[in-house]
Amino acid sequence: MLPAYFDPIRGRIVPELQRFLEAKKKDLSRVNPMGPDAAQRLLDFSLRGKMMRGCLVHLGWSICSPVARARLERESAVTAVGAAMELFQSGLLVHDDIMDKDPVRRGRPSVFQQYREVAGREGRADSPHVGHALGICAGDVAYFMAFELLARAGIPPGELSNLLELCARELSAVGVAQMQDVMWGGGSSSASEEDILRMYTYKTGRYSFSLPLLAGAIIAGAAADLKARLEGFGESVGLLFQIRDDELGLFGAEAETGKPVGSDVREGKKTIIFASLMAAAPPAERGRLGGIFGNPRASAVDIEYVRSAAASPDVRRRIDAVTEGLVRKARAAIDGLPSGAEQDRAAMAGILDFTTTRRH
Amino acid sequence: MLPAYFDPIRGRIVPELQRFLEAKKKDLSRVNPMGPDAAQRLLDFSLRGKMMRGCLVHLGWSICSPVARARLERESAVTAVGAAMELFQSGLLVHDDIMDKDPVRRGRPSVFQQYREVAGREGRADSPHVGHALGICAGDVAYFMAFELLARAGIPPGELSNLLELCARELSAVGVAQMQDVMWGGGSSSASEEDILRMYTYKTGRYSFSLPLLAGAIIAGAAADLKARLEGFGESVGLLFQIRDDELGLFGAEAETGKPVGSDVREGKKTIIFASLMAAAPPAERGRLGGIFGNPRASAVDIEYVRSAAASPDVRRRIDAVTEGLVRKARAAIDGLPSGAEQDRAAMAGILDFTTTRRH
Repeated sequence: MLPAYFDPIRGRIVPELQRFLEAKKKDLSRVNPMGPDAAQRLLDFSLRGKMMRGCLVHLGWSICSPVARARLERESAVTAVGAAMELFQSGLLVHDDIMDKDPVRRGRPSVFQQYREVAGREGRADSPHVGHALGICAGDVAYFMAFELLARAGIPPGELSNLLELCARELSAVGVAQMQDVMWGGGSSSASEEDILRMYTYKTGRYSFSLPLLAGAIIAGAAADLKARLEGFGESVGLLFQIRDDELGLFGAEAETGKPVGSDVREGKKTIIFASLMAAAPPAERGRLGGIFGNPRASAVDIEYVRSAAASPDVRRRIDAVTEGLVRKARAAIDGLPSGAEQDRAAMAGILDFTTTRRH
Repeated sequence: MLPAYFDPIRGRIVPELQRFLEAKKKDLSRVNPMGPDAAQRLLDFSLRGKMMRGCLVHLGWSICSPVARARLERESAVTAVGAAMELFQSGLLVHDDIMDKDPVRRGRPSVFQQYREVAGREGRADSPHVGHALGICAGDVAYFMAFELLARAGIPPGELSNLLELCARELSAVGVAQMQDVMWGGGSSSASEEDILRMYTYKTGRYSFSLPLLAGAIIAGAAADLKARLEGFGESVGLLFQIRDDELGLFGAEAETGKPVGSDVREGKKTIIFASLMAAAPPAERGRLGGIFGNPRASAVDIEYVRSAAASPDVRRRIDAVTEGLVRKARAAIDGLPSGAEQDRAAMAGILDFTTTRRH
């Protein structure tokens, strides 16, 4: 579970998203009825998320401006930027689901799947293609609305260019890391542990943690060394978050994760578990493993074979070496924060705990 | 042809795009080799465009600040924003080509098609899907890079939020208008002339003309009435531009337009010609026309039938009534501009001329 510290922050982001997207529904109704309809779908979709990224903007801001916390007008900008982060995330997920052919997301039909059903009801013979096309548009619109929200967040003029550059630059890196993930998946390509950790850093780690923390720090006008500390903390917990994701995909409970056990294996996703397994396995086993990874028809017995191989001491040792180093780095970043703001430090420790122990 | 006035402006945007995208190649190489490769593809793609939108930023700025033209530091911001417009356009086209299944754009394989070929060479059995997925990512990256360029353009801080809001809001409208275009296409849905003109206004008119002219006006710190005049001019010439596009699609020379004659008809695109034809045709003809629009196997005889029906006096009268009104409005907007800057007024007249007479 995310630290309870985040509950009231989430309680501010929800109405901000509602307010902004209700206004966009009106604004887009001048174009056509599909505009307000898309804004409503993106609102529903965004509200079903944990809003971790949005909340981290507030945490980054709070850490960097313990005194300024009372300045309410600045806090409203922080909330708006948090809401923008959630819209960026919605846009990325809408596009990801098309790429991953994922018909379900956050417990409901994914956005492209919703449009596919709409096209089907309208009698379109090419409803799968129409679903993809409208999903591409909806993701694009989510990004553009997020940037519009940034523009209207009330960021002090001198800081808006820094914030915009930060968001745009990190998002480009996410797109490029996603390309690598697509290109590796399903193929017979190999990828080293180092390559995979770099992909995680840009696709998940920096984007999900460093970016929102730094966004908050920029709004607070933080000094460079404090920003660097938050950035580093974000990278460490971001990698831990993704590694945990991989473990849940293989060892988690399907009822909790909402994802079929072994789907990463069948899709041939290049995960850190895959790379560690291949590096640690004796040559004889490597052949069998290579035949299972990326095989959509891999059996339950095959998946069980991968699970037990991944649980072997050699593989655990490799992965633990990585995660223990990351936990150490994250703890050092927390310890190095300026004193005061004990609540914020506790929230950071809570995030570290969340990334390593979460069950879904 | 675009007015010669634009040649030196294009001559500034080209090196700006090169400089920025070369820097992004370096920046994205920290992620993986697909990053610089994608930036190079987007650079090549962007450089093959006419750069009309980028040049219009300069024109809007020049009209609104005849005195400030000597201030070189501001002109460099204008060039950077012009380059950003070209990157937005590249992103939209990369995504459009996926939606329209268009394997060729600007005389070369479209970006998703390039990635499809890459995936094929790497032995991916699912190369069509990989091409789409990487094309989605490449379009996203183009948008994000465009926003990064805006952030780094050196816009005066007080004006950046206005510029960002303008771009983001117009781009959302483009996405939503594109959704309508997708939903209408191929289906048996009907659309009135009014509906289609509204779709054109947001998908093409405002985005391609009003947006860049207003972006230039914002950089110049123009007054509201002058901005409104440019915005209106943009809407008028934008609609003329799109109506001309439809006419070239049916009556143009394939060798000049690069587009098979009648492809709009076979795809069932809801164009102003389609709506005017359906409105003007006697009921007996309407049935045959309805069977041709949206029929991918419509014969050359069918297309010739549509051409001659569209050339009938009744249909011409309907379309001419629209275009003549738009030309009048555009001329009035030019006449109402403050005196001075005769070169700029001539350039606007040249654009009006271009939108109504261009052959490709």
